[in-house]
Amino acid sequence: MKELKMILESIGELDQAAMANCKSHLDQLTKPQGSLGVLEDISITMAGITGQEKPVLTKKTTVIMAADHGVTDEGISAFPKEVTPQMVLNFLNGGAAINVLSRLNHSDILCVDLGIASDIEHPNLINRKIAYGTKNMRLQASMTREEALKAIKTGIEIADEAVKSGTTLLATGEMGIGNTTASSAILTVFTDLLVEKTVGAGTGISPETIGHKQKVIQDAINRNQPDKNDPIDVLSKVGGFEIAGLTGLIIGAAKNRVPVVIDGFISTAAALIAYELEAKTRDFMISSHLSEETGHKLMLDYLGLKPMLHLNFRLGEGTGAVMAFNLIDASSRILEEMATFESAGVSTK
Amino acid sequence: MKELKMILESIGELDQAAMANCKSHLDQLTKPQGSLGVLEDISITMAGITGQEKPVLTKKTTVIMAADHGVTDEGISAFPKEVTPQMVLNFLNGGAAINVLSRLNHSDILCVDLGIASDIEHPNLINRKIAYGTKNMRLQASMTREEALKAIKTGIEIADEAVKSGTTLLATGEMGIGNTTASSAILTVFTDLLVEKTVGAGTGISPETIGHKQKVIQDAINRNQPDKNDPIDVLSKVGGFEIAGLTGLIIGAAKNRVPVVIDGFISTAAALIAYELEAKTRDFMISSHLSEETGHKLMLDYLGLKPMLHLNFRLGEGTGAVMAFNLIDASSRILEEMATFESAGVSTK
Repeated sequence: MKELKMILESIGELDQAAMANCKSHLDQLTKPQGSLGVLEDISITMAGITGQEKPVLTKKTTVIMAADHGVTDEGISAFPKEVTPQMVLNFLNGGAAINVLSRLNHSDILCVDLGIASDIEHPNLINRKIAYGTKNMRLQASMTREEALKAIKTGIEIADEAVKSGTTLLATGEMGIGNTTASSAILTVFTDLLVEKTVGAGTGISPETIGHKQKVIQDAINRNQPDKNDPIDVLSKVGGFEIAGLTGLIIGAAKNRVPVVIDGFISTAAALIAYELEAKTRDFMISSHLSEETGHKLMLDYLGLKPMLHLNFRLGEGTGAVMAFNLIDASSRILEEMATFESAGVSTK
Repeated sequence: MKELKMILESIGELDQAAMANCKSHLDQLTKPQGSLGVLEDISITMAGITGQEKPVLTKKTTVIMAADHGVTDEGISAFPKEVTPQMVLNFLNGGAAINVLSRLNHSDILCVDLGIASDIEHPNLINRKIAYGTKNMRLQASMTREEALKAIKTGIEIADEAVKSGTTLLATGEMGIGNTTASSAILTVFTDLLVEKTVGAGTGISPETIGHKQKVIQDAINRNQPDKNDPIDVLSKVGGFEIAGLTGLIIGAAKNRVPVVIDGFISTAAALIAYELEAKTRDFMISSHLSEETGHKLMLDYLGLKPMLHLNFRLGEGTGAVMAFNLIDASSRILEEMATFESAGVSTK
C-alpha cells in the first residue's frame, strides 16, 4: 500500500502550456477554428497528457486482463465460465473481434492471465495469475486485500513495461465471464444507487436473470459491507482480478504520462477505482465509447467523462477502445500533416 | 430529364436474401449476438446494397464537388469566396483535413470543378465546370433547369467512372463558400420549417449575420417560389452546382448498387434532392456523422437516416464521411476475419 501511495502521489497535472500551444497550432490550420470538434479536443487533451505540442503516436497497445469470477456459481451469466479461457485462446490465436479491430487500427494486444480458473498454454500469454478465479462474493470477499494490491501492482508493472517497449497509447481490455456483476457491484457501492439502476444484461441474460443478478449483487454488498471510502476494500470485496489489474494499468499510464483509452463497462469500473484512489488519474483517461450495458453512462457521468463513440457495443475485450484509435490517430495526424492558412495561401475571415 | 427518369426507375431494392445470410453469419461469430451494434448494422446494410453476404471493400473514393455561389454577394459567409478555389488547390496539394483523414483511412479523393467562379490549373482537377458560379438566388434562380440536370448527369457519370475504376464505396464531399445558405434554403422548402430553424452559423458567422442569412434565404424563396413537388425546380432555384453534382453522385451510387457515405449538411441537402427524386435512393445512403450545423438533424430526421458519429464537426469537405470509413472497414473485416464459435471451440450459451 505504501508503494502504491507513493505512485499515486507522484501523478501530475495536465501540461497547460502544451495544451495552449496545441490549440494555437490547431487554429492556424486550414479550417474554421474548432470545426474538427472532438478531434481537436483529443489533440489538446493528448498534448496536456504527454507535454508535447504535437503528440506523436508510435505504438498503441491494448492490454487485455483476464480472470474468472466465483460469483458465476450463482448463475448470473449467459455464458458458462469455461468461455473465459476459450476466448483468451481466441485472442491469442487472432480470431476475436478485438484482434480484427486491432489489426485494422494497427495496434498491439497484450493478453494477461490475472486469475483465470484454469491454465492456458500459449507462448504469447503473459501469466501473472494471482489465483484460480475470485471467491463467490455472495458468500465472502472476492479476494484478500493483499491480492487486490498485488493485481494493481501487476497492472502498473505491465504499463511500465509497455511504455518501456515504446507504447505511446494504452487501452484497457478484459475478459472474464461474470465481470459485469463485479462491475455493477462496484458502481452500486460508490454511487449508492439501487441495483435496479446499476445492473444490466451483460452478454445477454433474460429479464428474469437480471432480477436474480440484482439480488446476488445486493446480497454480496450486504454480506461484505464494502467501505466506499476505501477503494481497495471495495475492489477486494466485490471486484475481480482483471478489474484490479486494469486499475493498475490506468494508474501506470498516469504515472508514465501516457494516455489510456478506457473501453466499456468493466474497464470503466476499473477507472472508478483508480479515480477514487487518486482523482488526478482521470485526466489521463480518454473515454472511448458508450456501451449498451446499463450503468455505463452512470459510471461515465460519475467520472465526468464524455465518450467519443456511440456504437451500441456490448462486447468488451477492448473493442470500443480500439475503435476510438482511429479518432486519436486522426487527431495526431491533423496536427502533423495539415497545411496552415499561410502555407496553403488560403484567405482567413 | 427522360434519361434521368429512366435511371431513377432502374434503382432496385435492397437484397433481402444477402442481408439474411449476412445476419446469420454474424450470429455465428465469437461474440454475443448483436454485441457489435452499429458495425453489425452496417454489415447488413452493405450486404443488402451490394448483394454480397460478405461485402468486400477494395477501393473507397470520396468525390469532392466544388462550386461558387452568387448569393455570397449578400455577405452571408464568414470567409470570402476566393476561399473556394484556394481550398480546392489545398485539396489537390494534399494539405486539407480531408486529405489527412483520407490518407489515414486509405481512401482516394476526386476533386471536381462543377462551377468554381475562377479557373484552376491542376493535373488532378476534374474540370466539369457548368458555369462560373451560380446566380444570386436572392435576385433570381441560382441556375437554369438545364444546368441543374447537367450537373446531376455529371455526378452520375462520375459515379459510373469511379465504379468502373474499382471503387466499391463512394462518399460525398464538397467545397463552396456560401453553400450552407443554399442547403438551408433546400431544407426550408422541403420541410416548410421557418428559417429560424433551418439556418445556422456555417463556417462561423455571428448571430447578427445569421439573422441576415435567414432573411436572404427567405427573400430567395419568396422571389423564386420553388415548387417542393418538383425537386429539380428546388435545386435550380435555390441550390448549387456542387449540390446538384452530389445529387447525381448519390443517384449514380444507387444505380451501381454501391453504398454512398453521406457527409454533413451540404451533402445531406444533396441527399434530400435525390430522395425526393426517388425515395429508393435512401437505401443506398450510409449516414456518417451529425454535423454541428443547425438543420443537419432536421434533414437526417426527414430522410429517416441515423448518423454513426457525433464528432461536433462543422467542416464539410467529406471529413465526417471519411471518419466513418473506419467503422465501415471494421464491419467488413469482422465478417471476413472473425472466428466462429465452432472454429474457435468456444462454448455457446
